[in-house]
This record gives sequence, C-alpha cells and structure tokens, in this order.
Amino acid sequence: MTERLVVIGGDAAGMSAASQARRRRGPDDLRIVAFEKGAHASYSACGIPYLVGGEVADPEELVSRRPEVFRDEFDIDLRLHSEVVEIDLDRRAVAVRDTDTGAGGGGGGAPRWEPFDRLVVATGAVPNRPDVPGVETEGVYGVQTLDDGTALLDAVAEKPERAVVVGGGYIGLEMAEALVRRGIRVSLVDLAGQPMSTLDPDMGALVADALRDLGVELHLGERLEGFEESGGRVSAVRTENRTLPADLVVLGLGTRPNSALAEAAGIPVGETSGIRTDRRMRTAAEGVWAAGDCVETFHLVSRRPVAIALGTHANKQGRVAGINIGGGYAAFPGVIGTAISKVCEYEVARTGLSTTEALRAGFEPVGVVVESTTRAGYYPGALPMKTKMIADRATGRLLGAQIVGREGSAKRIDTLAIAVWHEMTVEEMTGLDLSYAPPFSPVWDPVLITARKTAQRLEELRGRD
Amino acid sequence: MTERLVVIGGDAAGMSAASQARRRRGPDDLRIVAFEKGAHASYSACGIPYLVGGEVADPEELVSRRPEVFRDEFDIDLRLHSEVVEIDLDRRAVAVRDTDTGAGGGGGGAPRWEPFDRLVVATGAVPNRPDVPGVETEGVYGVQTLDDGTALLDAVAEKPERAVVVGGGYIGLEMAEALVRRGIRVSLVDLAGQPMSTLDPDMGALVADALRDLGVELHLGERLEGFEESGGRVSAVRTENRTLPADLVVLGLGTRPNSALAEAAGIPVGETSGIRTDRRMRTAAEGVWAAGDCVETFHLVSRRPVAIALGTHANKQGRVAGINIGGGYAAFPGVIGTAISKVCEYEVARTGLSTTEALRAGFEPVGVVVESTTRAGYYPGALPMKTKMIADRATGRLLGAQIVGREGSAKRIDTLAIAVWHEMTVEEMTGLDLSYAPPFSPVWDPVLITARKTAQRLEELRGRD
Repeated sequence: MTERLVVIGGDAAGMSAASQARRRRGPDDLRIVAFEKGAHASYSACGIPYLVGGEVADPEELVSRRPEVFRDEFDIDLRLHSEVVEIDLDRRAVAVRDTDTGAGGGGGGAPRWEPFDRLVVATGAVPNRPDVPGVETEGVYGVQTLDDGTALLDAVAEKPERAVVVGGGYIGLEMAEALVRRGIRVSLVDLAGQPMSTLDPDMGALVADALRDLGVELHLGERLEGFEESGGRVSAVRTENRTLPADLVVLGLGTRPNSALAEAAGIPVGETSGIRTDRRMRTAAEGVWAAGDCVETFHLVSRRPVAIALGTHANKQGRVAGINIGGGYAAFPGVIGTAISKVCEYEVARTGLSTTEALRAGFEPVGVVVESTTRAGYYPGALPMKTKMIADRATGRLLGAQIVGREGSAKRIDTLAIAVWHEMTVEEMTGLDLSYAPPFSPVWDPVLITARKTAQRLEELRGRD
Repeated sequence: MTERLVVIGGDAAGMSAASQARRRRGPDDLRIVAFEKGAHASYSACGIPYLVGGEVADPEELVSRRPEVFRDEFDIDLRLHSEVVEIDLDRRAVAVRDTDTGAGGGGGGAPRWEPFDRLVVATGAVPNRPDVPGVETEGVYGVQTLDDGTALLDAVAEKPERAVVVGGGYIGLEMAEALVRRGIRVSLVDLAGQPMSTLDPDMGALVADALRDLGVELHLGERLEGFEESGGRVSAVRTENRTLPADLVVLGLGTRPNSALAEAAGIPVGETSGIRTDRRMRTAAEGVWAAGDCVETFHLVSRRPVAIALGTHANKQGRVAGINIGGGYAAFPGVIGTAISKVCEYEVARTGLSTTEALRAGFEPVGVVVESTTRAGYYPGALPMKTKMIADRATGRLLGAQIVGREGSAKRIDTLAIAVWHEMTVEEMTGLDLSYAPPFSPVWDPVLITARKTAQRLEELRGRD
C-alpha cells in the first residue's frame, strides 16, 4: 500500500528529508507532498546579506533547486503558497491554507485537510522582534526569508541615507557590512557590550574594531526603546541614550524555533521552545519527524539542549529524517556551536563553549590567545590572525576556540571543531599531524601554537596548585 | 652537578629540543652546546623554493632565529661550521671537526672531543642522489640546506635558459614552479607515471594538468640515465628515451634519514634507516635522544614504521625530546602522512593512506571523488576543488583523503587529518559540526559532501554483498 509523506516547510530541512526519503523509496511506495507557505523553496537564507550587499546579483542565484526539479526529478509534489495551519494527529491530517488568493494575499477560503501517514515538521524559525513601540512600522525589516531579502533589496534601491541595524550577531553584522557597501551610513545598536556576544569579550573587541574601521557607528550596551515614524515609514530609532535617524532599520536579534504549530498539536517541545526529537529526528508522536531550525538539539560539550538556527544543521537533520523515513538508519549526533562569518576584511569563527558558557556548564576554563599568521611569516600574503583556546583547567580538555583574523584564517575553526568533538586535550593536540607548507601556515600552524601555549599555561597553573 | 647536553644539528629538531630543555632547566643545572656543520641554524628549508622563485627576497628571511638569539636569550652555545664526525657512547663524547678552516673548507686539524651527559641526535636527512654517470657534475643541485638555496639563487642569477627537474615530489614541483617564475624553460623527469606519487593516479593527473598549464614539459615514466657535461658544467639530462638540454638541474628525489653517525655509534636504526626512538624520542642508548628527519616514526594508520622528512614533525619531535630532557613528560604520537603543497594556481594536499598504501596495509579501500567549490556557488570567488576520500569497505573508516583545487581548498586537509587520526567512519563524519557561511563553503562543506557520497557508495556496495 502506498504511504503518504507530508512535509511542512519547503526549505533546507524539509526538502532534504523529502529527497532522501525518495532516494530510498519509489513513488509507488511513498507519495511525497511538501507544503511551503512562501513563494520560494530550497534557498539559502544565509545568502541574503550578500544579495543586499550586491555580491550576489539575483535572488534566483540563492535558490539551490527550483520547484520543478523536485516535481520532475524527485517526484515530490511541492506546493508553494501553501501554509499548514493545523496538525491533527488523531485524524492524521494537516490543514492547509492558500496564501496566494486575493490581492491582499492571506487565504480566501477555508483550509482543506490533507492526510498523511508520515509527517515531517520543518517549519523553521521566527525572527525575534523587540517588544517596543513602532516595531511594525514600514521600513523595519527582518532577515529571515528570501521574500525579506527581496524587500530589502527594493528598499536599498531607493537609496536610503541612513540605516540602523538592531542586534550585533552574525546576521546583524553581515547586514551592516552589506548596507555600508551600498553607500549607506550605518549605525549598530546592541544591548550587549560587544558585537558577536557568542565570542569572549577580548575577541569580540577585535570585531568591534573591524566594524569601526568600516565606518559603522557602534552603540553598544544600549537598550532599544522604540521606532519613530514619519509619513507612515520609519524615521528614527530610539535607544535609552539617543535618537538615531533612520531611513531603514534591519532587525538582527536572532530567531527562535517556529514550533507553535507542533506544540498546538500536542508534539512535545523542550525548554528552548524547539521541538524535541531523538537522534533519528523522531518526535514523541508516532510517525512524526522534525528537522531544522524548529527543533531543539543537544550540545555535546555543555550537554544541554540548544536551539541553533543554521542551514548546515537543517540540511543534516533533514537528511537524517529522510534516511530513516526511507527505511535506513541515520542519526544526528548533536552540535558544538561552530559558526563562522566574514566582517569586512576580517574573518570570525568560534566553536564549542565560550568562557562564559564553560563556566555555566561547570568547567573551570582557562583561555589563551595567540597572535600568528595565516602563512609562513616570510611568505607573501601572510596575514595576521588571533586564535583563542578555552581549555578545562582540571583535565586540559579543549572546550572551545575562537578565531578573528584576516583572509585565510577562520576556516581553521573546523580543525578545532573536530578536536572539541573528540574531547581532545590541548596537550594531545600539540602532536596532531596537520599540514604545513609556507604558503599555507607557519611551521607550527596557529592551531598548534595555540595548543602548545595553552598546554604551557595549564602546566604553569598546575605548578601553582 | 651541572649536566652537559650536546645537540648534533642546529635546525628545527635540534634547536627545538635545546630551547625546550632550557625552558625547564637553567644554565646552572644544564649546559647546552649545539653543533651545526653548516653556516646557518634554525631556518626553514621548506622556504627554499620560494627563495629561488623570488617570492622571498633574502635568504635571511628564512632564518627563524639567529645564532646570537640562542646564545643571548637561551644561553645555548650554538657553534656553526662544526661537524660532529663520531659519537662515542662509552666515552660519552662526540668528535667535532671544524668545517670552516682553510680555503677549501673541510677541517684542517684533528677533531676534538666534546663530552656530554645527554645527547640529542638531530642530523636531518640526506637527499637521495641517483646512481648515474655525471651526478657530481657542476650545475646539478640538491635542495636540502640553505646553502643549497643560495647556490641555486646564484645559478638562477646567471639566467640559464633551460632547467631539468628530476623527481616529481613536493620539492620537485615547487622547484619547477620557481624556475618557471624566473623565466626558465623547465622539463620534469620522473620514473613514476605521475607527479606526486603520494596521490592516487586520478588526483595526480590533475596535478600533471596544472604543470602542463604552467608550461612545464613532463617526461613521466622515464628512467634517468645520466648527465652530460660541457666545459665542466652540466649540459644535458639523458633519459632512456631522450636527451634534454639543461643549463641547470635540480634533484628532487626525496631524502633518507641521515643516520650513519648514530648507526656507527651502535644506536639502533630501523628498516627505514631512520634512528629508532620511543614515544618520548629516546633512542635505545641511555641518555641519547633523536628527533627530526633522521628518525623513524610510526604511521598511525598503516601501523608501520616510516621516515618522513618534514619541518613540522621535526619541530614537534624536538619539542618532545626537550621537554623530556628538561624533566617533564611529552610524547610524539606518530604521523598520518599529512602533506600540502602549492603548484601554480593549484593547491594539493593529502593525509592518511593512498589507495595503494591502503591495499598494502591490508585494507579494502573504496575511493570516492567529489567536485565542489571553495565557497557557496553563488558567492564571488567560489573556485573549484576536488576531494577524494578513501574508506575501508568493511568498517567505513576513513583511511585517507586527498584534495586538489584552487585557492582556499587544500587547508581543509587538516579537518580530514583529524578525522583520520580519530579513526572516524565516513558516516560519522557526515554529522560533524563544521563551519558554514557562504564566503567560506557551500552549505555542505566539500568535506561533508564527500563523506556523504562515500557513505552512500559504501551502502550501495553493502547492498550488493
């Protein structure tokens, strides 16, 4: 008997799950229907800042697979403009509303019920919006969907003079740079005392310097109070200390799992508000999987549940769900908080726990920062980079690492990430057989130098015990 | 009572050992004397091709620490032009000959005996020289010491028209590129059917293409028969198939451990002809350590002894020896054959076992090559790269990996190296939390895509079993 798989959400997680399930089960065995409420499926939301900044010329370039490819090559019935508004686990059906009817959009008729035997919830994340007056004013943009991206592109085309970015996380910084590239004067407001609060303060300070060099006006440690409007559009951003004129505002305050639909259906969500799954991405409800930004996952170092919205996790989790639905076995092991970003001429990356996170998790962290170069010092194009390692004082285990440096530095975070993953000690790391040639690193790669210096520091501390 | 540490060899391994020993033991406790037969100590031999190619302007730039730094800051008595010609373990002394006396160089007087309590043998490697007529002809250069480098620089200054490089390993290729940069017509001769025979043939073929694009004339699979001379200088290289005119010849035939001195003293050497040590870099002789290119080490995947001449190993082994001599504990765990090189616009890297090496070690290797890009496909500057993984069919364990690609690709070998180090399976690797942002990688990093495809391939093969 043919089963029917319904996928809610047509981006990375949902479409990876659908594709993997199809790879293992043919159309006679498994019908696959995917509902996407927006106008696009399977696109790179992470590419939006580069679209706005002009590095990417056309929104279509961010689409990795066009809808007809899913239909024609994968036999996946992908339906755009189709919002699932309810999951009924007893009826084994979802209620779908057309979002493309009428001039105002937003569903003319009653939702229709679509049955499922198996269900994948891949509803993504919702951007955090500050609870302040004026947040719904025109000209205040989120950066979440490709539709947000094209709206921002239109706004930029009108040559605004001043923009304010609220929030100094990855997206906030990437957007600040994008707007500067468009010739716009940019201010950045963040309640935190540094941009990229997932970095330790000493490393975050380097990022702040990079932003100032780019001409971004930083207002750190300042509470947002609201948005002012003029003629129906945003005209200024008010903080506790000042009023910043703004023709355009970008919100970069992070996201939270979009789990309301699942929760309303009785599918358990965790303390992070992400949907709970096991390693195979199964929810507690029979025959229901979840994947991507809407789920809660496990942090392998802190051993706590976390919700991290990131395309790479979404793709992996979707793949895992799809393999399992297809009758195979796959597991998503968890995350260690690896992230990377480019800010002007600087590359920024982190993995594992920051010092604050390590303390919170009960470790006694020892941090060591080493200044080095991307290539052998004498080789042309050697550029400076700083690497920080955070190790557990008692065991020497690498808990986390951060890199801020010029071109060619930050991808080294992957090396550090696998070391964190395998719970290596910094002393063990000094023996790693990493690649060396003058165009690629000093004879001691920055990773190895930092491991060595951290091991030395731990030894000195032991000497004092 | 003050002990006396004698170090034979003043480059990476020897001086690392001396410096680390000094860090832990003051001059009242440990006298340190280092003998270096050449005119330079502590330099980057790996930088020689860039000196010859002109990327590095001055030989002095390759010197990481000048002799007076060792004397003044480390209280290490470094003596240049001092060749140790004999080790007498019973007398606990080494015989030292001055190499800088008289116009012809090469020791006027009798060697004098220098006593030691502890000894570090760091005598490096000797370049392999082919046993063919004319190999001693003027104009035939090795690439081993900084003195070789300056000799080559002088030769290049005379504007030779044609050069022949014998041997297509890392040094051979780097030298070929260096000579092309100097406007010299370069031919490369190798008995092997591909350059970089440490790569699988399919990946080596990409390197051959890159060399041809650079204008290097390749004569692969050809046996060298000898060198012809004219007026006391080399004039041609003779292979079994042809005679290649040459104003300059560079030998890049690899090296072997320079262990004759140790062996003559009765210190055991292994089947690779490298000096045998334990993990702490102790030889079988009481109070005698060895480190660097002169030792034999352990390959963690093949579980066989290997001798690999590489500055990064030498530095690490020297550090380990020095810490142990200083009274601490450190161990060198072994190697996995990681290497990296730049050939024109291409980056080339490898780690672990090649297919041939895996077969020899008793695995059943399965190789998968994936073509991908260094950045997200839509991000400016995304360049092509090919990644190959070699996995064990029975267990899925990653045995080795190779990368050939454009700028920004090859340093990913470190990520693969740690995966090999930890004996990860390719399926496990698909879950790794590696960094992702469009300027740094596609949403699936090439490492992850290749892991996924290799896992798929293994699953298909299992389906057939």
